[in-house]
Amino acid sequence: MSLLTIGTVAFDDIETPFGRVERAIGGAATYIALAASYFHKDVQIVSVVGDDFPKDELDYLQSRGVDLEGLQIKEGEKSFFWAGKYHDDLNSRDTLDTQLNVLADFEPILPNSYRKPDFLMLGNLTPAIQIQVIEQLENRPKLIALDTMNFWIDSALEDLKRVLGMIDVLIINDEEARQLTGEHSLVKAATAIHGMGPNYLIIKKGEHGALLFYNHDQNAESDSIFFAPALPLAEVFDPTGAGDTFAGGFMGYLAKSNDTSFENMKRAVIYGSAMASFCVEEFSVAKLKKLTDEAVQKRINRFVNLVNFNIELKPSAV
Amino acid sequence: MSLLTIGTVAFDDIETPFGRVERAIGGAATYIALAASYFHKDVQIVSVVGDDFPKDELDYLQSRGVDLEGLQIKEGEKSFFWAGKYHDDLNSRDTLDTQLNVLADFEPILPNSYRKPDFLMLGNLTPAIQIQVIEQLENRPKLIALDTMNFWIDSALEDLKRVLGMIDVLIINDEEARQLTGEHSLVKAATAIHGMGPNYLIIKKGEHGALLFYNHDQNAESDSIFFAPALPLAEVFDPTGAGDTFAGGFMGYLAKSNDTSFENMKRAVIYGSAMASFCVEEFSVAKLKKLTDEAVQKRINRFVNLVNFNIELKPSAV
Repeated sequence: MSLLTIGTVAFDDIETPFGRVERAIGGAATYIALAASYFHKDVQIVSVVGDDFPKDELDYLQSRGVDLEGLQIKEGEKSFFWAGKYHDDLNSRDTLDTQLNVLADFEPILPNSYRKPDFLMLGNLTPAIQIQVIEQLENRPKLIALDTMNFWIDSALEDLKRVLGMIDVLIINDEEARQLTGEHSLVKAATAIHGMGPNYLIIKKGEHGALLFYNHDQNAESDSIFFAPALPLAEVFDPTGAGDTFAGGFMGYLAKSNDTSFENMKRAVIYGSAMASFCVEEFSVAKLKKLTDEAVQKRINRFVNLVNFNIELKPSAV
Repeated sequence: MSLLTIGTVAFDDIETPFGRVERAIGGAATYIALAASYFHKDVQIVSVVGDDFPKDELDYLQSRGVDLEGLQIKEGEKSFFWAGKYHDDLNSRDTLDTQLNVLADFEPILPNSYRKPDFLMLGNLTPAIQIQVIEQLENRPKLIALDTMNFWIDSALEDLKRVLGMIDVLIINDEEARQLTGEHSLVKAATAIHGMGPNYLIIKKGEHGALLFYNHDQNAESDSIFFAPALPLAEVFDPTGAGDTFAGGFMGYLAKSNDTSFENMKRAVIYGSAMASFCVEEFSVAKLKKLTDEAVQKRINRFVNLVNFNIELKPSAV
């Protein structure tokens, strides 16, 4: 199975209560590809950097099996740059600086070898660019997932609604779900979002875990919701990239298992959550670079234990 | 097994975005006993009301098997009264009025038949009263659980710390855990609370579920945490009593099963969560009065499905 992703490859200045880093490696596509690489090789990236982006970092991505044929390197230009500072509780942050640089006039160009992906992960970029990627495909992928953010809900709602009609899985956080639908209740928001197109919806709630909805009808007492926990951590060191890492683990696992059933998607949400729990333990992509398959499996086992309880489903009364 | 509980039996005026009720039946002991009554009969209540409390409501409690021998009825006095208004998101509320009435000089008196409980649930009251109950016991119960609130953390911290040294399970919400310990991280707060006495800690997170900690060491990669989801609901109608209902379901299930292992306590947390999910669907105790064993079992099945996923624990790599 092939997995194509689009998103930024960038530099981040990050300040948290635990310290700060400058020009750390970041970007949605970087986190997605790194997280996915623990499950699936040859993740194809469509993105753009300037000639300031370190060659050894690109070499590293390739060494993890990431396919960079679709990564444009613009001579004489600078890579996308973001600077942010997290508040003490790490649940919110201020953006201190955003320099679009090469992203300002980015046009995604899919190499021929990228045009028939089985799985497509549209990382957070303008909805117009996400649509351009879909329009270059020769086949409808088996599954298209999309991440977006409050900024596009505010500024590009029409394009966003258009692309929502073209995808299978929307991955957003709780505040974005509320903003997109005007519903405070996440269950009502889910029903509204299914009506916009996606059959599957993942609502990320940070330290409170994630909800997966599958064509959920808010009026039915059905079982089309899955609740994945977040691993309770003593310290969250740096939340940057956690959402992208979740998406990468989720799509990497789906591509590896080649199974888009609701049951398998539950497993994929757990794998995504596990990868995100690693991501936040160190600055930038530091932790994602040094995992082993054993460490991933051990972390998955912790998730299994975290929610595992033994009540048998009974048709009769208690 | 016998289950003893202490707490208020009271009137509530409640206003939510969905309506308001006046002089509705409330009080921690009422919710605890009603929720527990679906699992365990003969729940013993220690509390106090005035002669204004409706006899038919007391008859109803007895009809559900609640033992009212320890309920003092003060002639010529008024029952405890609370009035509150919930904000639009139902996550916070303002207290509009509190009239202690009979509670002002309440001294808990345990009938002889109450002095050897197997399970003791100390509902939210002053820590001094909670201690008085423990001191009247002839035997150390198999399990003592305690609920408290921010008001006692502020105003009666020394007494609270004393009673924490006498109990097994502390049941509080996330903000109270942070306030009690000064730790923002709930994992760190848990370690600090274990150091105050309780081997078990349940942190209620409202719509985000509940965490159960068992002597958790924040530095160990152990599996002494259990994460129970809340049922995602389209509408939360009235959150009043949800925490007490959780405690009642939790303790009722433990008393019924007579098993205080960590594994069984996980199940009890699910039963408590299920009862709380009913409680919030209607005003006051309305929903808790009309449940059936079948409805409870059906709700439990929804919780099982909500978190159930099928990843086998593997010693080897993925």
